[in-house]
Amino acid sequence: MSSSPLIEELIEAFRCLPGVGQKSAQRMSLHLLERNRQGGRRLSEVLAGALEKIGNCRQCRNLTEEPVCGICANPARERKFCCVVESPADVLAIEQAGTYRGVYFVLMGHLSPIDGIGPEQLGIGLLLERIAEGGFEEVILACNATVEGDATAWYIAEQLRDAEVAVSRIAHGVPVGGELEFTDGGTLAHAFSGRTNMKRA
Amino acid sequence: MSSSPLIEELIEAFRCLPGVGQKSAQRMSLHLLERNRQGGRRLSEVLAGALEKIGNCRQCRNLTEEPVCGICANPARERKFCCVVESPADVLAIEQAGTYRGVYFVLMGHLSPIDGIGPEQLGIGLLLERIAEGGFEEVILACNATVEGDATAWYIAEQLRDAEVAVSRIAHGVPVGGELEFTDGGTLAHAFSGRTNMKRA
Repeated sequence: MSSSPLIEELIEAFRCLPGVGQKSAQRMSLHLLERNRQGGRRLSEVLAGALEKIGNCRQCRNLTEEPVCGICANPARERKFCCVVESPADVLAIEQAGTYRGVYFVLMGHLSPIDGIGPEQLGIGLLLERIAEGGFEEVILACNATVEGDATAWYIAEQLRDAEVAVSRIAHGVPVGGELEFTDGGTLAHAFSGRTNMKRA
Repeated sequence: MSSSPLIEELIEAFRCLPGVGQKSAQRMSLHLLERNRQGGRRLSEVLAGALEKIGNCRQCRNLTEEPVCGICANPARERKFCCVVESPADVLAIEQAGTYRGVYFVLMGHLSPIDGIGPEQLGIGLLLERIAEGGFEEVILACNATVEGDATAWYIAEQLRDAEVAVSRIAHGVPVGGELEFTDGGTLAHAFSGRTNMKRA
């Protein structure tokens, strides 16, 4: 279609990005070639470097270029809380909220037997080891509020039943700023079953 | 914000792409690192190669890795028609419509004195030289249907007033204010067949 096989190849290569179809890939390719070659060169270099150097944190499995990630290595974090999340994007979201000061454990997915993802693939053995080492007071399960996320949270809670540690699940309910009218039934059901006492003692 | 400076750098690098903000850049970075490292490596390599090798066609200024682009080098194209467009994306759109069989001249922009873009930056000298060499029967101006595109078309028509060649402008079947790149093939075909003479008697 194009006058250049190399541009075709570049458009095809951009389609590996999430949410990028033929048209966006074409726009990205031509934008870099016509208007921002320096940005493109930088992207190529940084991407190659990141893919080569970034692996998983030895302690929490989060993505990092160091053996131990910045959060696990930070002496200011409260080591009595361990928040279990599905992905590095969840860590970013919680960090951006800025209220949590404990450490994390990143599953890199959720239980999904049909895709061959069991406890082993999620590093749950490593999580149990870390808990068994002691020091943690509470494990906060922050898996997504989906069927798979719920199943994963229940599985981990079950594994920790006999451990000397509290196990909690983050609340699911109506989002702050959200309106009841536009909240789905599942969320409302959760909001009702998770209601808290408001009456002063 | 992230636990890794290298991931921060990667997110920042992705923001050079058009239409990609902080959130999309983060999603792209984590997607490649978590799920598609091979696609990411390929993107990095193809991008570096394309930026190094792709320049402008000696005849039509379109982007290509060869001295002369695939369209100019194709003996099957009708060398009596020269279609003048603003960008390589426009060439792609017209090629995808599939009705035009002539060759192109790519201005790589439009007249915009405020940005320092005059006839020289658009290679209009090269265009006039190619027309003066003879062989062309018609120059079809397919600049965008915008104020700047119209001005550019009129400027080129004026320059060709005394040349032995017909000068036409594609019909405004293309929505006014719209851009060629985002026009469907049928509209583009109409625009070609409805072109009108632009040369003063």
